[in-house]
Amino acid sequence: MERTLVCEATAKIGQKITIKGWVSTKRDHGKLTFIDLRDRTGKIQLVGYQKMSELGPEDCLSVTGTIKERNEKSINPNLPTGKIEMDVEEYSLLAKAAPLPFDITKEELDLELPTLLDHRSLTLRHPKVQAIFKVQAVIIDSFREFMKQNGFLEFQAPSIVPEIAEGGSEVFQVDYFDKKAYLSQSPQLYKQIAMTAFERVFSVNKVFRAEPSVTTRHLTEVVSLDAEMAFIDSWRDVKDMEDACVKYILNQVGERCIEELKLYQASLPKTIDETPVLSLREAQQKIFDKTGRDCRGEKDLNPEDERDICKIIAEETGSDLVFVYGYPTKKKPFYVFPDPEEPEFNQGMDLLCRGVEWSSGGRRVNDYEQLMKHVEEWHMDPNKITLFLEAFKYAVPPEGGFAFGAERLTMQILGLGNIREASLFPRDMERVDFKLNK
Amino acid sequence: MERTLVCEATAKIGQKITIKGWVSTKRDHGKLTFIDLRDRTGKIQLVGYQKMSELGPEDCLSVTGTIKERNEKSINPNLPTGKIEMDVEEYSLLAKAAPLPFDITKEELDLELPTLLDHRSLTLRHPKVQAIFKVQAVIIDSFREFMKQNGFLEFQAPSIVPEIAEGGSEVFQVDYFDKKAYLSQSPQLYKQIAMTAFERVFSVNKVFRAEPSVTTRHLTEVVSLDAEMAFIDSWRDVKDMEDACVKYILNQVGERCIEELKLYQASLPKTIDETPVLSLREAQQKIFDKTGRDCRGEKDLNPEDERDICKIIAEETGSDLVFVYGYPTKKKPFYVFPDPEEPEFNQGMDLLCRGVEWSSGGRRVNDYEQLMKHVEEWHMDPNKITLFLEAFKYAVPPEGGFAFGAERLTMQILGLGNIREASLFPRDMERVDFKLNK
Repeated sequence: MERTLVCEATAKIGQKITIKGWVSTKRDHGKLTFIDLRDRTGKIQLVGYQKMSELGPEDCLSVTGTIKERNEKSINPNLPTGKIEMDVEEYSLLAKAAPLPFDITKEELDLELPTLLDHRSLTLRHPKVQAIFKVQAVIIDSFREFMKQNGFLEFQAPSIVPEIAEGGSEVFQVDYFDKKAYLSQSPQLYKQIAMTAFERVFSVNKVFRAEPSVTTRHLTEVVSLDAEMAFIDSWRDVKDMEDACVKYILNQVGERCIEELKLYQASLPKTIDETPVLSLREAQQKIFDKTGRDCRGEKDLNPEDERDICKIIAEETGSDLVFVYGYPTKKKPFYVFPDPEEPEFNQGMDLLCRGVEWSSGGRRVNDYEQLMKHVEEWHMDPNKITLFLEAFKYAVPPEGGFAFGAERLTMQILGLGNIREASLFPRDMERVDFKLNK
Repeated sequence: MERTLVCEATAKIGQKITIKGWVSTKRDHGKLTFIDLRDRTGKIQLVGYQKMSELGPEDCLSVTGTIKERNEKSINPNLPTGKIEMDVEEYSLLAKAAPLPFDITKEELDLELPTLLDHRSLTLRHPKVQAIFKVQAVIIDSFREFMKQNGFLEFQAPSIVPEIAEGGSEVFQVDYFDKKAYLSQSPQLYKQIAMTAFERVFSVNKVFRAEPSVTTRHLTEVVSLDAEMAFIDSWRDVKDMEDACVKYILNQVGERCIEELKLYQASLPKTIDETPVLSLREAQQKIFDKTGRDCRGEKDLNPEDERDICKIIAEETGSDLVFVYGYPTKKKPFYVFPDPEEPEFNQGMDLLCRGVEWSSGGRRVNDYEQLMKHVEEWHMDPNKITLFLEAFKYAVPPEGGFAFGAERLTMQILGLGNIREASLFPRDMERVDFKLNK
């Protein structure tokens, strides 16, 4: 008999159907056995005969029976299939589960993070853990949707790269035959190259950071959502695109992840039509005015500044989002565009939300002469970025772009405590699937 | 004035608009200068005044003027905008291009591959080169579309992996802090883990092969399109899903890449409703019967066999696609499912098209005891795949999956001579952006 999904069962009252899935919970009541069976679309209650009491948690079944309405008293308003149950006629065991190392039927898994990750294969069966990756799939998918709707072409950014022109020790080295190669820290230069041909490009790609940190915010491998666009009139065009993009993503998550957000009691960030935009100095002044804490003249916002400015802006405007632009030119990479009116500050920007950075972007240097001057001033070796420089040698209009980290967005939207929870197979200094041995 | 895209100009006859793009070609005719301006949507002819003769190829312009119909004799039927031109009123140079190292205005670029790749940034501006990556974007996008339509969840497969349980020298080693890690050769085990939680999963991810080969078919970094599905009744369910998937992709490319296919005079593979399916032994027998060449009893099809069987099947049935299944169990990885009737042959399969393998897949071992037996027989270290084995310890139903290489599909559909053309930033033994020094 053809398989029916759990989510389709409510429409089959009175019909005999076959459901396949895993035993989530089981309760024996004398001659009857009650089982919650889980498939990818939800859970359904089975009412079975005595023999079913042989079944244990996570056993995998095919079960055939008739769908009937529950009596009034047994209705479960918290379950989408709460008004029905299946009277089991027969079942067959598709696979028998070993005894579980811990109970995964509780609403909260309540495990220490190392246990959660050591047993990723099992904990991934828990609805709350699954919710994280359903939300992440929607974030990534809606990023791509928005980009395609706005004429951006998807391209594949490379992971293996030659020696990094900017230097930096936080890069992984690869034994590349008898030579050396590296893992990409950012598709920045590649997306700029692709932009010079296709005008508007985006990519969903891996980036790798060899930062020797084991904090709640560090992973060595993350998914970066990148976009770059040519023919802008000013950096504000990039800001507007980024703003519309993040609002689209939030909107899609709100529409497509209702149940998942509920599981985490997560409320989406509040947005307003005109997301507030402040220069770094305006933000610092505002923090000083409101809190008395003086960070004016600092080169960047520190985590406390980020929390403060987000709080102040949310109170003043109702927006959880705020753009901060105009960082000291020399503190940022060579490709960031200096403000022509005030070249010691640039037209790079960060998008902050609820106290943390969600995205960064801005206008880039598009003029070849200026770019070559920056390469010199930033003490970079032009021979290491020949493809990039050649792209700009043959005329590139004003342009800019932005990037989001998929895990960070997932973590922030669901309010997770550790970014490792937002990566299906998280990698850090100490873990690649399991704890690494020296 | 707001920018109008070239593809929108035909609807603006009689209107004054602004177009932005790059000078593709320029012809001076006395007091008039004719320019083909290129943006991401196409080319348009500009009729300009004398000063425009200062412009050179790839200069980047913003140009304002009135769109008018060409007179009958000047209509270009090969150009979507061939019935119109713009009378230029004013223009401004957005960026000046350096003199080009070679002519990129010809219909065929006609460069040696190393030159094409050394100058990837410039050659990527050629419409025929761009077409490759537009087709690739559609292949990847339609793969995802098909998967989502069929209830598959997108997940992110890791690139950094621990020591490979199967061994093998063709894997890149990464200096991972003071330890060793590796680059993933395949998301196989990870997609199987994700499947045990989500039933149906797919991913678009990088895989890395350290094969020391510089052939027309080898890259060290490729994009893999992967899918895995639980609750199958037999390996034929996987075959059917794979078949429907490749037909969907071909159909989408046919609909969305009409111009791109034309540039390569590419015809899509012919398909029929029931794609032919042969066992390895049936395929070998057929080759013997039709050609007299005896490959019966060989463990696999070699390239000549693949060409022959595709040719024979196309002649017999009209299908360019053919599935071949049932390879010797011991010649394939430990996770491939042996035919219960005849355990020395497995239920793995390859999808061939026009003489080459497009995809491979099949049913996997889902029973934990059998899997552990295979781990032993294949001489693998179970401690290196603890996450994978744990997934199967807690009951997994019959399952299978398949994978395509995005570059190979692109190459085959367009009939490219070298897979490097089908990778935006191809990596091989000798090249990572540019030729590597020892």
